Amino acid sequence: MSVLLQMAMFPTDRSESKSEQVAQVIKVIRESGFPYKLTPMSTIIETDKMSEALSIVQRCYEKLEELGCNRVYSTLTFDIRNGYENRLEGKVKSIEDKIGEVSK
Amino acid sequence: MSVLLQMAMFPTDRSESKSEQVAQVIKVIRESGFPYKLTPMSTIIETDKMSEALSIVQRCYEKLEELGCNRVYSTLTFDIRNGYENRLEGKVKSIEDKIGEVSK
Amino acid sequence: MSVLLQMAMFPTDRSESKSEQVAQVIKVIRESGFPYKLTPMSTIIETDKMSEALSIVQRCYEKLEELGCNRVYSTLTFDIRNGYENRLEGKVKSIEDKIGEVSK
Amino acid sequence: MSVLLQMAMFPTDRSESKSEQVAQVIKVIRESGFPYKLTPMSTIIETDKMSEALSIVQRCYEKLEELGCNRVYSTLTFDIRNGYENRLEGKVKSIEDKIGEVSK
Repeated sequence: MSVLLQMAMFPTDRSESKSEQVAQVIKVIRESGFPYKLTPMSTIIETDKMSEALSIVQRCYEKLEELGCNRVYSTLTFDIRNGYENRLEGKVKSIEDKIGEVSK
Repeated sequence: MSVLLQMAMFPTDRSESKSEQVAQVIKVIRESGFPYKLTPMSTIIETDKMSEALSIVQRCYEKLEELGCNRVYSTLTFDIRNGYENRLEGKVKSIEDKIGEVSK
Repeated sequence: MSVLLQMAMFPTDRSESKSEQVAQVIKVIRESGFPYKLTPMSTIIETDKMSEALSIVQRCYEKLEELGCNRVYSTLTFDIRNGYENRLEGKVKSIEDKIGEVSK
Repeated sequence: MSVLLQMAMFPTDRSESKSEQVAQVIKVIRESGFPYKLTPMSTIIETDKMSEALSIVQRCYEKLEELGCNRVYSTLTFDIRNGYENRLEGKVKSIEDKIGEVSK
């Protein structure tokens, strides 16, 4: 099974730039050991089980709580598919097979 | 603490209508015992802790797996705020206090 | 055709509470004349065409710009379906037909 | 001004794989001429104005309509910021400045 999770999580009780807190959240993701990709809008993580993905979400929130954030906003999108793996690479390749090179 | 979770979760390997599977997901939410509201686009649930909200997400996914869904898509949005409660009612009231009656 | 748009839009360069700006955005939606429902996490609007829905999004952003917001975050979800109408009421009813009364 | 739009749009009235239709949507984005990045979960596009971003969304939907899709689901996230540009590269760099190299 392949669980792709696209996640953004940030405090909304801070000033305009949130990159300090966001950087700490990404560090939690990096330390989880699962393959991930950082994009300009979110981080995409691939796990084998739904529970592993949700456990990363929990740890990211705990990090923001630790940093003293009083209000946190988060948007998550899941694409969960049985019988597939390594879709972190595979989904973009499947598009390129159809329409040629894309920016990535 | 008030954790507001806006959740949509549905199979994408089925025909055009998904209301049968979506109904089963909502039954899981209803049985969780936490206050919730069903809207035309998602279900909004209020819990006291992040872990409770994530545990509902896990159970909803397990229900779809049980029903034999091979591909599941889900979009979640969290608004987590310390020192507040009953925002399932409170957030809409706070808007009405500012601009008068709204449709809800 | 029925275009259901679930929209949240708020400034992220302000202090913890954004309800003043959010209230102005909802006023723009109310004045659009399309049927809508305000929920604790977003507003759901039903239009007949995609272009009408996108035009409301544009006007909401312009309102926040007018109010001097320097950074705006927005999450939108669309469910667009041919051959259907009045799904603002219909989708919840269709769930209740399957599992009985829900909170809404 | 920098408008970052993270977009996923796909038919939900088709079989399990939607990569044929999704490929056509990405072709529309590529032909728009704006800088973009394809990720495993969505496409991120940067424009100078909100209206340009919304116009791409409209054209993507029209392509799916043309292809005969009867039901379309789409999730969009906007991060709009005055006084900034080239955030398609800049946001990830700003994170790396804080915590070192990340996977991207």
